Amino acid sequence: VKVELGERSYDVVVGEDALDRLGDHIRQLAAGGRVVVISDSTVASLYGEHALSSLRAGGLDASLLSFPAGEPNKTLATASSLFDRLFALHPPIDRDSVVVALGGGVPGDMAGFVAATALRGLRWVQCPTTLLADVDASVGGKTGVDHAAGKNLIGAFHQPRGVFIDVRTLRTLDDVQLRSGLAECVKHAMIRDKSLLAWIDERAGKISEREAESLAELIARNVEIKASVVAADERESGVRAHLNFGHTIGHGIEAQAGYGAITHGQAVALGMIAACRIAERRGLVDVSLRERLASLLDALGLDTRREGLDADAIWRIMQHDKKARAGKVRFVLPTAPGEVDLFDDVEEPAVREAIANLG
Amino acid sequence: VKVELGERSYDVVVGEDALDRLGDHIRQLAAGGRVVVISDSTVASLYGEHALSSLRAGGLDASLLSFPAGEPNKTLATASSLFDRLFALHPPIDRDSVVVALGGGVPGDMAGFVAATALRGLRWVQCPTTLLADVDASVGGKTGVDHAAGKNLIGAFHQPRGVFIDVRTLRTLDDVQLRSGLAECVKHAMIRDKSLLAWIDERAGKISEREAESLAELIARNVEIKASVVAADERESGVRAHLNFGHTIGHGIEAQAGYGAITHGQAVALGMIAACRIAERRGLVDVSLRERLASLLDALGLDTRREGLDADAIWRIMQHDKKARAGKVRFVLPTAPGEVDLFDDVEEPAVREAIANLG
Repeated sequence: VKVELGERSYDVVVGEDALDRLGDHIRQLAAGGRVVVISDSTVASLYGEHALSSLRAGGLDASLLSFPAGEPNKTLATASSLFDRLFALHPPIDRDSVVVALGGGVPGDMAGFVAATALRGLRWVQCPTTLLADVDASVGGKTGVDHAAGKNLIGAFHQPRGVFIDVRTLRTLDDVQLRSGLAECVKHAMIRDKSLLAWIDERAGKISEREAESLAELIARNVEIKASVVAADERESGVRAHLNFGHTIGHGIEAQAGYGAITHGQAVALGMIAACRIAERRGLVDVSLRERLASLLDALGLDTRREGLDADAIWRIMQHDKKARAGKVRFVLPTAPGEVDLFDDVEEPAVREAIANLG
Repeated sequence: VKVELGERSYDVVVGEDALDRLGDHIRQLAAGGRVVVISDSTVASLYGEHALSSLRAGGLDASLLSFPAGEPNKTLATASSLFDRLFALHPPIDRDSVVVALGGGVPGDMAGFVAATALRGLRWVQCPTTLLADVDASVGGKTGVDHAAGKNLIGAFHQPRGVFIDVRTLRTLDDVQLRSGLAECVKHAMIRDKSLLAWIDERAGKISEREAESLAELIARNVEIKASVVAADERESGVRAHLNFGHTIGHGIEAQAGYGAITHGQAVALGMIAACRIAERRGLVDVSLRERLASLLDALGLDTRREGLDADAIWRIMQHDKKARAGKVRFVLPTAPGEVDLFDDVEEPAVREAIANLG
C-alpha cells in the first residue's frame, strides 16, 4: 500500500515474511550505514534477534536498543536514556544511519521521536507488531512521548521511509490487544467505508481466530483508508480529524480510568457508541447505525457498555485534550454508515447524556 | 528580507524598533491564541518586560518562561523543565499558541526545540539579540539541545513564521560576543559575496562603534546571503554545507578548548585561516586571500593566531562531527574571493599542517 505524501511518500508492506525481508529493504536505504533497532523489553525478547539477523543477513551493521515496556515509560526521561546509548555506539551514528522501530504503539512512538530528533532527524522505518500499530500508528508519521500533563504532548511529525508489517507477529499478541486494534478497524470502516463494515461482520470469526489471510486483508484495507485520510491532510488541520471518531469521549474514558485500566481500542469503541448517540439526538442518523455498530463490536469481543463512568471527569479531560482549540471540543459524528463530519457545537448536556447511556 | 522556502517562507525584519512592533506582527499569527516567550535569565532580565509589554499592547495573552543562561544549560533536562512549565500554564496552551524565542543562540535553539516538539509542533518566531544569532541562527530553522556526546545532537528543523531583529539589542552585547558574530559575517562574504568583503573592510570602524545604520545594513546583507543558501538547500544535503566554511577545524578548536574558553566566531575565524591555507597548498587560491582575510579579521578585533592548539585532539573531534558521514570529514575550501567548494579528499597531514601554522 502506498502512502502518498509527495516527496515524503512511502510504502507499507503487509505480508507473512516482512521481518525476513527487512534486511533487503533497508539495505537500499542505508547504503553502508548503521541501523539501530529501538524496541521495548517485551518485543525485543520476542522479535529482536529476528530483526537483527535479518538486517545482518542484508549486510548491515545493526544494533538493538530496548527500554522497559509500558506506556508509563513513554517519557522524555526514557528518550534521554536512549539518546545516551545511541550516541555511545561505535562506530558512531551519522546522518546516514537508519532507525528501525520494532513493536507496538509505545516503541513506535518512542523510536520515531528519537529518530525525529537525533542529529535533527534520521531516516526511520516502522515494524509494527500489534494490530493497533499496524492499522493506526503505521501511517501518519506521528511520533512522541507522554508528559505528566497528557499523552503525546511532546513529539514531532516525522514520516517513516517504509513500514513492514509481518502478520506472524500477531500470533503472540494477547486477545485484549488484538481487540483494541479491531476497534480502530471498525472506526476506519465507520468513517470511510461501509463495505468494510460488512466485510468485518462476515469475517469476524476468522479474524478472531487470527487466520493470516484475513488479518493481512484487514490490515491492508485499513492502511489504505488511513493513508487516504493522511494524504489529504498530513499535518492534521482538516479531514484528518475524522480519524478522531470515537476518540473525543474515548480519550476521556481512557484518561479517567487511568492508562492501562482499559485499552485504547476499548475506550474508542465506547466513544464511538456515545458519538452515535449524540448524532441520533441531533437527527443525523437513526438508531439502527448504533445498533449495527454495537453488534459488530460485540461480535469482535469488545464491550459496548461500561458501568461507573464519571461524566464530570471525562468532560473536564476532554476540554484539556491537545486537539481542543481555544477551549472548544470538536466532535466527529456519523452522518451515514461509512461517513462522518465535524461539529463544533456539541454542548455539555448532550455529551453527559451519551456518557450516562453507556452505563 | 524574505526567506524563500515555499509554503514555509517567512520574513526577517531588521530595524530599530522590531521589539516594539512584535505585538502587531504576532497578533496576525496568533488570532486569539496564547503567546509564550522563552528566554534565558540574562536576556529575560534585559528585554523580557519589553517583549511582554509589546505583546500585551497587541492584545495578546503573553507569558515568559526563562531558564539559566549559558551553553551548559542547553540540555534535554532544561527542555524538560520548560515543558513542565509550558504545560502547567493557564489557560492551557493549544495548537494555536505561538512561541517567541528571545535571545541569542542558546535561547533560540532551546525555544525552537520546545516549539518544534510541544504538541508535535507549535508556530514560533525568533527575536535574536546577538549579532551571531541575527546573521546565523535567524535563518535556517535549526533548533536543538546539546548532549554530553556533542553539541546540537538532539533537535529538529522547524522553520519560524517570522524573525524580528531589533538592532538596539546589540547595544548591550559585550565586545567579545559582537566579534564572534562578525566572524560569521566575514564567513558569509568569503563564501558568496566578495563585494561584502570590501564593504566590511571599509566599515570596520563604524561596525565596531555599533553605529545602528551600519549594523542594520550588515545584518540585512548577511541574512540575504544565508537565506539564499538555505533556500537552495533547506535540509542541509548540498550547498548548505558551504556555510560550514571555517567550521570543520573551528568546531574542533572550540571543542578542544572547552566550550566557553573561546567564542564560536573566534574559533571559526581561526578555522577560516586554516582552510585558506589548505586551499593554498592544493593550488586553489594564492596566499593573498589568506592575507586579506587575516587583515580583515584583525581590523574587526578577531585573533588570527592561537598558541597551544592540540592537532591530535582537534583531528579526532573533527572525525566525530555530526556532519561527518561514514567517518569522512568534508571540507569547505575557498576557490576564489567570495567562492567556495566542497572537498572530500583532504588528508590528515594537510589538516595538521594548517593547524600547526595557526600557532
